Amino acid sequence: MGSILIKQVTLKGEKKDIFIKDNIISKIADRIEDVADDTISGEHKTAIAGLINMHTHAAMTLMRGYQEDLPLFDWLQKVWDLEDHLNPEMIYWGTKLACIEMIHAGITCFNDMYWYINDGEKAVEETGMRSLLNYVFLDNGDARKAETQRRECMEYFEKSKSWNPRNKFGVAIHGSYTVSEKNMLWATNFALDNNLLVHTHLSETQKENIDCMQQYHTSPTKRMKRLGLLNDNVIAAHCVWVDEEDIEILGHRRVTVVHNVNSNLKLSSGYKFKQRELRKAGANVTFGTDGAASSNNLDLLEAMKTTAILQKAWRNDPRALPLDEMMDMATVNAAKALRIDAGRVEEGALADIVLVNTSSPAFTPNYNFLANLIYSAHSSCVDTVICDGRVIMREGVIPGEQQVLDNANRMAEVLISKNK
Amino acid sequence: MGSILIKQVTLKGEKKDIFIKDNIISKIADRIEDVADDTISGEHKTAIAGLINMHTHAAMTLMRGYQEDLPLFDWLQKVWDLEDHLNPEMIYWGTKLACIEMIHAGITCFNDMYWYINDGEKAVEETGMRSLLNYVFLDNGDARKAETQRRECMEYFEKSKSWNPRNKFGVAIHGSYTVSEKNMLWATNFALDNNLLVHTHLSETQKENIDCMQQYHTSPTKRMKRLGLLNDNVIAAHCVWVDEEDIEILGHRRVTVVHNVNSNLKLSSGYKFKQRELRKAGANVTFGTDGAASSNNLDLLEAMKTTAILQKAWRNDPRALPLDEMMDMATVNAAKALRIDAGRVEEGALADIVLVNTSSPAFTPNYNFLANLIYSAHSSCVDTVICDGRVIMREGVIPGEQQVLDNANRMAEVLISKNK
Repeated sequence: MGSILIKQVTLKGEKKDIFIKDNIISKIADRIEDVADDTISGEHKTAIAGLINMHTHAAMTLMRGYQEDLPLFDWLQKVWDLEDHLNPEMIYWGTKLACIEMIHAGITCFNDMYWYINDGEKAVEETGMRSLLNYVFLDNGDARKAETQRRECMEYFEKSKSWNPRNKFGVAIHGSYTVSEKNMLWATNFALDNNLLVHTHLSETQKENIDCMQQYHTSPTKRMKRLGLLNDNVIAAHCVWVDEEDIEILGHRRVTVVHNVNSNLKLSSGYKFKQRELRKAGANVTFGTDGAASSNNLDLLEAMKTTAILQKAWRNDPRALPLDEMMDMATVNAAKALRIDAGRVEEGALADIVLVNTSSPAFTPNYNFLANLIYSAHSSCVDTVICDGRVIMREGVIPGEQQVLDNANRMAEVLISKNK
Repeated sequence: MGSILIKQVTLKGEKKDIFIKDNIISKIADRIEDVADDTISGEHKTAIAGLINMHTHAAMTLMRGYQEDLPLFDWLQKVWDLEDHLNPEMIYWGTKLACIEMIHAGITCFNDMYWYINDGEKAVEETGMRSLLNYVFLDNGDARKAETQRRECMEYFEKSKSWNPRNKFGVAIHGSYTVSEKNMLWATNFALDNNLLVHTHLSETQKENIDCMQQYHTSPTKRMKRLGLLNDNVIAAHCVWVDEEDIEILGHRRVTVVHNVNSNLKLSSGYKFKQRELRKAGANVTFGTDGAASSNNLDLLEAMKTTAILQKAWRNDPRALPLDEMMDMATVNAAKALRIDAGRVEEGALADIVLVNTSSPAFTPNYNFLANLIYSAHSSCVDTVICDGRVIMREGVIPGEQQVLDNANRMAEVLISKNK
């Protein structure tokens, strides 16, 4: 690895030089005279921490726009039918497409839940991003499948030891309604024994809550607590349908909650996400995009704007969810959940940095950079992306992008043709 | 004027040549061999009609991000304080900035309500866009001010006869709560006598309705009807707080309604916009962005996505507001309201065309172009914009853009400094 010097970039309103040595931000000062292997001009650019997408199904990019304007369960059935035909090559190119898209959107790290994660890891590694890739438990109560998955999980964990260290292995419990209690407990203990994180879907739809109440006479959150599954290593996506007691539990157990506003709205899952209440209770609240099959893109900046204006609307309070808090959700809170020292452009942190080009109508005038970034601009303002001390996009160009688009298109054609 | 030939562009799923003669789409065919003054390659591009932004306050771009996360009336007071210091030069550069931003977002025409419209017209004319610029009535019941405005309106109307024919003159009744009944009637009659359109704010906030009920014992819509103000030449922005009877009236009178989702959400004005009900009743429903002081940008594609997913969410119906209907709202419905033959890429229509670049992750794969355009892409997909038969943006480049950004920044600085 080498060194990068970013000259006279705007950082928290001031012009600074930033020196990156290997994968660490080693020095930030008014002027740095050290010679670096690579020098980047910060003219018309503002540095922010790389954004972290805390809930994705990356390779679902191949299903982008495949089914639109359908009721939830019709939509799900169409998607599941397609998923039966996925193979490792599709996962590889679909994940690469997701990475290309996320890098363009200023995302340097993501938390994924999908199939064939060794092939996914190869794709992520080649693009230079950082990730948490989770082996997915989903047995629908089938004891043989459950046993196979326990064995596979151990095998995948062993294989993950040869992954690039930027990519971490995690365990996913798809949902408390799709995984047997035995496997949920097994996965939780496996994660705790091996110091791993657990990624799950929780209270995404009202139906999930109603079904849980009928079968177990309690909410999904309370059931997971009762089963001993809720610890501070849990990352729970959605949590749209949580009551006051659920919120207290998620806060007390220091669970990380991921809000996925675009897919929640588009699938009519619910929109009154209790961001403020969850944060106050002590939960670690973050942002995700969900997969591109439901939210259509993997753009966290877009999700941040939609979240903020929707919180202001349904709470009837224009002060709801201020800009600083949103940026924390997309950076430091997420980094904390993933147990990496990223999400901040400060000396000593991992060098995951995004340079935003402010020479555009969206940043004119520039009274308030964060307001312009989140409310006015789109991800096209992302100019240069550095992850783990390497430039992975420079002035909007990602090496090999066209090849990824071509292969992803080819894979999508094959996938659809199998479903006819 | 001259001719333009767009070669082998995707139009409604098929490769076509499009020939533009002067300001009209003269021919669309599989292959056109005629020689044109300008030839544009349609490779990796899809042609759509130019989008129409039906409610803006263009020069408020100068106040973008100036005040954030404030309660509505604190915010309004800050904005009004600034507006006292606006001068024609600020309007000119603020409007130019708005035009630059809208052209980048694929908007070829907009309906504006702001001050010093002759200076606004000069800005619009120079960028090549199309507009409806409305003289604003706002007297707060002050009889002298009301008289001055009637005189000014007639003067402005006379001056508008020397405007570029792309820009039409209209009359704005700011709102039924800010304009005297005498002037509302005068403006309405002046518009009907001169074949002009009337632009107004209607039932934007619940407070407006409550105040109207207290003072006039009826809703703003019913009051406007009773006063004889509602005809098919009326373009009513917002209409968030309308009851069943209001909806019937707006439909029966064939009023054009403009939904401005981003400002409604961000200012906590309301979010249950009755798009479906208004359309069914016969109203002509369209999209707007409102001014950049409240919605932060002038991006109609963003507003379309937010509208669709929010309609699906609060109605608990993923089928709400399908893609085709949204495109109609942003194009043909708006053109109908403005009484121009635009909003469609068909022979005989005005040549207001946007070429979308589909070679990007947002359009990969491309099963459903409209889904990708509205749900997945951002306005950065807009490659080339033709308005009234002239190329006003080519491959993302608008001539003179940097000068506009520099001058708008300078004007914003002057504006803010006066408010200290």
